[in-house]
Amino acid sequence: MEPYRLTATQVIEQIKSGHLTVEQYALSLLSRIEQRDPAVKAWAFLDPELVLEQAKQLDRVPPEKRGPLHGVAVGVKDIISTKDMPTQYNSPIYTGHEPALDAGCVMILRQAGALILGKTTTTEFAATATGPATRNPHAADDDYDEPRTPGGSSSGSAAVVADSQAAVALGTQTGGSVVRPASFCGAWAAKPTFGAVGVGGGGGVRPYSPSLDTLGFYARCVADLEVLVEVFGLRDDDDGEGPGPVLGGGVRGARFALVRTAVWSEAGPGTRAAMERAAMLLREHGAEVEDVELPEGFNQLQAWHACVTASEARASFLPEYRTHKDELAGLLVGHVENARGYSRADQLRALDGMAALRPVFDGIASRYTAVIAPSVTDEAPVGIENTGRAVFNGMWTALHVPVVNVPGFKGASGLPIGLSLIAPRYRDRHLLRVCREVGKIFEAEGGWKSAL
Amino acid sequence: MEPYRLTATQVIEQIKSGHLTVEQYALSLLSRIEQRDPAVKAWAFLDPELVLEQAKQLDRVPPEKRGPLHGVAVGVKDIISTKDMPTQYNSPIYTGHEPALDAGCVMILRQAGALILGKTTTTEFAATATGPATRNPHAADDDYDEPRTPGGSSSGSAAVVADSQAAVALGTQTGGSVVRPASFCGAWAAKPTFGAVGVGGGGGVRPYSPSLDTLGFYARCVADLEVLVEVFGLRDDDDGEGPGPVLGGGVRGARFALVRTAVWSEAGPGTRAAMERAAMLLREHGAEVEDVELPEGFNQLQAWHACVTASEARASFLPEYRTHKDELAGLLVGHVENARGYSRADQLRALDGMAALRPVFDGIASRYTAVIAPSVTDEAPVGIENTGRAVFNGMWTALHVPVVNVPGFKGASGLPIGLSLIAPRYRDRHLLRVCREVGKIFEAEGGWKSAL
Repeated sequence: MEPYRLTATQVIEQIKSGHLTVEQYALSLLSRIEQRDPAVKAWAFLDPELVLEQAKQLDRVPPEKRGPLHGVAVGVKDIISTKDMPTQYNSPIYTGHEPALDAGCVMILRQAGALILGKTTTTEFAATATGPATRNPHAADDDYDEPRTPGGSSSGSAAVVADSQAAVALGTQTGGSVVRPASFCGAWAAKPTFGAVGVGGGGGVRPYSPSLDTLGFYARCVADLEVLVEVFGLRDDDDGEGPGPVLGGGVRGARFALVRTAVWSEAGPGTRAAMERAAMLLREHGAEVEDVELPEGFNQLQAWHACVTASEARASFLPEYRTHKDELAGLLVGHVENARGYSRADQLRALDGMAALRPVFDGIASRYTAVIAPSVTDEAPVGIENTGRAVFNGMWTALHVPVVNVPGFKGASGLPIGLSLIAPRYRDRHLLRVCREVGKIFEAEGGWKSAL
Repeated sequence: MEPYRLTATQVIEQIKSGHLTVEQYALSLLSRIEQRDPAVKAWAFLDPELVLEQAKQLDRVPPEKRGPLHGVAVGVKDIISTKDMPTQYNSPIYTGHEPALDAGCVMILRQAGALILGKTTTTEFAATATGPATRNPHAADDDYDEPRTPGGSSSGSAAVVADSQAAVALGTQTGGSVVRPASFCGAWAAKPTFGAVGVGGGGGVRPYSPSLDTLGFYARCVADLEVLVEVFGLRDDDDGEGPGPVLGGGVRGARFALVRTAVWSEAGPGTRAAMERAAMLLREHGAEVEDVELPEGFNQLQAWHACVTASEARASFLPEYRTHKDELAGLLVGHVENARGYSRADQLRALDGMAALRPVFDGIASRYTAVIAPSVTDEAPVGIENTGRAVFNGMWTALHVPVVNVPGFKGASGLPIGLSLIAPRYRDRHLLRVCREVGKIFEAEGGWKSAL
């Protein structure tokens, strides 16, 4: 197998055992990127010389001083600061901006030995749905009539991981910016519990709606997500207390809640089929799958989410509004000017309403092994101008719960569709253990296989 | 009057009318600083040449292009990024750190025409109670036997404003880091509603506990706080709907809730006397003052506040823990290692508990013109090693409500004591209108006058 195809877990093993150097791995990735970038266009910045320099430095680190991610190639969404590469937020205001420090999350990755490959594309400030030039890697080549969006706002991070241009990547989610691109591109992704990973340290992660902004991880397998969650120090209360509800032995005896949500009418045929097939497969493998309708109060989450993001964006984009209004997207100018006319009372009702539902949802979800819900309305739509809709994601972001996109299903055009697996807050590691078993089934029998 | 003594409002007027240039004003401040800094030691960084260069540039701006803060001298707490001065967090890890960008709040100030004087001292990452070398300006001179703390963590910002080394300053509060130093130094300060001012944009404000970290303002009069709140775009729902409950005509007919809080036993004689005198004065001026005891649930806020700050600090300081553990304060190492043993269940109970009380408090507070509570246990204690206790502040920070420290009272040694005036969330401008009237009374008849 070409080294660029290795998952993070495999890279770690091959480098540790001496079968691969970081430089060899980097050269393989750079060759893959050279071949694919003209079609996929997922990098906002990538300097091959800097990559090779880093790789050689990593190879010189003596084995006893190597970190748990030694050599693993990471793509970093371009709203996350890096000290040796520009950080431009896909905003003309920040063209060429070079932070003095890595964001805290990048500091943690580098200290763990990661090879920071480059910066991945994003929508403007990760706060609009206007796509960058990036194409969905499953529909990127010239022989396709029309390219499709990789989703957004973490467009490039999802695309490079799905396309084996990086082993893992960092994204961020305020609405559906981690989970939707993962589903569109057929990647695994984890949006951890809100607050479990810091977003403000070092050079920082660009804020949009600070009550909701969450760092997330992309990978091509669940084991890689587990490695990342370990590196970032996430801990459930019951870690180490023995096996979770599903472990090693598949999903027999597990109990899943199938939550179609209040916006189920937005689900297209691909997502409807994926939900049905998922339920059928899990039942076939011995799990209980129960249709669960959340209490009526949860129906307000989507509207509350919209109100909170717009209201918090008023403060988040005020500096750019004051200094560079002409170069700010109209949507963001509208947020600062409160174009939707939200009152402070609206904002507080939404904030308090969300907060009140969080423990309610935790209570409901803790009665199940995991909750299963749509990740998207359907497979990636045609066109790259718009990154698609986050209608199935905002409520989980608002609830601060961990969400994992598990790929395995497909839509009418054969493009990937994933499902969201969800757990109560700070049950991140439990959720990954569950997804390990569920993923085996979805990936083997869901009907979709990556052709990349 | 020497220009350095001017309030922001006065500086704006004098420069606008042509009676003062920014350069003249800057020279006067620099002379004040030169005289006082050896005793007060409130600047983490100040370069007189850079100040004069900025001042001259501001003088060259044509009148029609001048902003609302044109020429006003601002001190910036050294956890807030500045593009032209080091930002060092009082941490050896960040010695000489020079961010590429101003924090969003500094961008807003500069665009409004402010003269950024320098960086003010802070405790380490604004997250410990170990004082910097700064002395309370009211007890800083050599003829005092022992210096006293200015409070913390915004030690320098409170001190430079109280000592007329800057007209206004930026601080931050996670526990009591804006209000306590204001009380100890006899300054006015406003901690706005949580989230009303962005803390993550541009080069960023260093995070500690992101659910609580709040930007705050220092000034020597309430009018200056009103100017700052306007520059930062804070809006109540009823702005412009005519007079608030107290306007222009003193406090006659106003109704205040005197809340001693669950930690009243911690109040020393100075604070006890200030609360009594405040109630008496307000009554004498025609207001109703009612003793109000909050429902029992509020008694948990202090413990919840401690749990949330420690739990969120786990993530906030993980990057430094991983990369420079030996140079991190023991308290912060303990947070990352969860030395207090908080479970995730504890953390969520505290977060959800706080969130649930916010609308409850808003409801209670909205029945009054304002709530009045202690700002501190007493006047500033002797010694600068410890910045004092935030026992009276954390609950209001947890409730996300706006708090203004109104000076006017004094302790046994003649040092200042202020009181906290508090309103429901997003009633920041209402609260300042109230404080304008209350401040007139407290400052005239409370018994304390600044000798600086």
